Amino acid sequence: MSRFFTKRLSQLDPYIPGEQPQGGRIIKLNTNENPYPPSPAVLAALDKAAIENLRLYNDPDCLRFRQVAAEHFGLTENQVMIGNGSDENLVFALRAFCDEQTPLAFPDITYGFYPVWAKLLCAPAKPIPLKSDFTIDPTDYHNLNCTIVIANPNAPTGLVLSRADIEGILQTNPNNVVIIDEAYIDFGGESCVPLIDRYDNLIVVQTYSKSRNLAGARIGLTLACETLVADVNRVRNSVNPYDINSLSQLAGIAALQDTAYTAECVRRIADTRTATTAALRELGFEVTDSNTNFIFAQTDAMPGKQIFDALRSRGFIVRRWDNPRIANWLRISVGTDEEMQLLVQAITAIVKGETA
Amino acid sequence: MSRFFTKRLSQLDPYIPGEQPQGGRIIKLNTNENPYPPSPAVLAALDKAAIENLRLYNDPDCLRFRQVAAEHFGLTENQVMIGNGSDENLVFALRAFCDEQTPLAFPDITYGFYPVWAKLLCAPAKPIPLKSDFTIDPTDYHNLNCTIVIANPNAPTGLVLSRADIEGILQTNPNNVVIIDEAYIDFGGESCVPLIDRYDNLIVVQTYSKSRNLAGARIGLTLACETLVADVNRVRNSVNPYDINSLSQLAGIAALQDTAYTAECVRRIADTRTATTAALRELGFEVTDSNTNFIFAQTDAMPGKQIFDALRSRGFIVRRWDNPRIANWLRISVGTDEEMQLLVQAITAIVKGETA
Repeated sequence: MSRFFTKRLSQLDPYIPGEQPQGGRIIKLNTNENPYPPSPAVLAALDKAAIENLRLYNDPDCLRFRQVAAEHFGLTENQVMIGNGSDENLVFALRAFCDEQTPLAFPDITYGFYPVWAKLLCAPAKPIPLKSDFTIDPTDYHNLNCTIVIANPNAPTGLVLSRADIEGILQTNPNNVVIIDEAYIDFGGESCVPLIDRYDNLIVVQTYSKSRNLAGARIGLTLACETLVADVNRVRNSVNPYDINSLSQLAGIAALQDTAYTAECVRRIADTRTATTAALRELGFEVTDSNTNFIFAQTDAMPGKQIFDALRSRGFIVRRWDNPRIANWLRISVGTDEEMQLLVQAITAIVKGETA
Repeated sequence: MSRFFTKRLSQLDPYIPGEQPQGGRIIKLNTNENPYPPSPAVLAALDKAAIENLRLYNDPDCLRFRQVAAEHFGLTENQVMIGNGSDENLVFALRAFCDEQTPLAFPDITYGFYPVWAKLLCAPAKPIPLKSDFTIDPTDYHNLNCTIVIANPNAPTGLVLSRADIEGILQTNPNNVVIIDEAYIDFGGESCVPLIDRYDNLIVVQTYSKSRNLAGARIGLTLACETLVADVNRVRNSVNPYDINSLSQLAGIAALQDTAYTAECVRRIADTRTATTAALRELGFEVTDSNTNFIFAQTDAMPGKQIFDALRSRGFIVRRWDNPRIANWLRISVGTDEEMQLLVQAITAIVKGETA
């Protein structure tokens, strides 16, 4: 750190993303990407004219994109903001609604960026432990007097809260914003989007990185009542209003309109998840009931770190954390059927002690 | 503003971008876009494979892009950071080096986002008046004990400081970071990149939105010594490490490598600027000696607002501000020869009092 760095931020502890190997023969199951390419409609949208048009600035209002998203979700265009990945949507929302006086509450086991952003914003972090079975007790979030962020389904556990449970949290925190991070909602669980018209303290964030096959395009959505969207957009317009490049706007529109393609990819991933979960349980693994495009699993027969390393040496990258509560668990993205069959074969060999 | 919005940011006054009309028959000369499309190499780089690859996350380290940029600028890859437009590079740098105790100094007439960011970061703003001829007196910036940001060439004046003048500012502020925003440097003036190895307090920010024909791809560069780049990257990794989508990374590499194409576009724009400047001076306009891809002009014969409105009604969008020091001035982006000939015809008719 240089001698110029502000005192305020000198304690920052940046988020560590999952490894993104560039090239090489690897089966990459560590960052929950979609194993299927984007909709053919995306390919059609990013044509020569779109690329030549890059000489012009993108629309900072993302008007057409917001109109399409509003129609898709049954909202108005002023209930939608687009951000540069759901990360940017989340950090802008936290910036609007957290500060030294307004702590941020979130589950102790969840997306690792929430505590990083709390520190960035000098907001006290209030981690709330999951129960021993990794479920969230919604009553732990009643009457908190904090800004709240909950990933639903939660990561890396894959478990969901019901919409009714989230309504209970919204109703008991009328003076605080509740952010529901629905990165994985298309793979299972009930979206809270239908609650937006009834709760002025609800923000739903969604992403294009998982169910919409466009992780590399960096698109996230803030969905909320018009006033909250205006607040978050006020932050966005004070930081970087041209944040969504024009090709991502076109890709985002095309992908959202091709609902049949998204549904088919989601269905295939869910089927693969079911088969892989069954195979791992057959091998003696404990596997959560995932509502996402990843599987969260552990076995008492071998340390998670050992399986992780052995998988790595066989060309599979999965994800694990040193956090003691989940140190024995692996988070495995759901790839294609073929990839997951190879994975199960590799894990079988590893737990049986075969050398690679 | 909702009742949830943090007190800290409630005074925010977001930046107002130049209008981005979507479609319509308009000659758009208000946001200094390049009139020529991106290099054909960009079109070639954004192929089917690149688009299908959008299912995967982009490289958060932008490693290949940084390597190409490092080679282009004669730096090391750790002296380069990529951001989502130069705006994001600037706000991350200001976040690293400004706070309540470290004010931000900048010219009173300059890029309108600097004071917005100062407010966002709760850093006192210290605007330093330009001289009456719109030039910057570099000695005004000596021994300031502030973080300093100077656009060079400055906007909307188009005027430059010499590299020697900037060295004087660097030498007299050894304990503060000096950011040189070189958005327009390829159109005139001396880049400060060659100073990076000699000053540990210098940050140079460049953009792809002007000379590199890629405004819609949102690419900016932070160029500095390794320690300062690491500081800014620390902020980036605490906010949004996946900020540069994969197509923009590919486009940025391709455009930077096609130096001949960039040079040819810059040459044509400079020629058009020379011709348009001469034509406006012929009409009695005062025009600064622009080192950019825009022209800054006024006439005592008619209020700038009146010319602006009359141009608008004839289908030309240019830019002006209500700031009293420059209220009579117009900033006109340099388009193609044909666009500028039409513009000069329109202005001629307007100042002669002809109706549209």
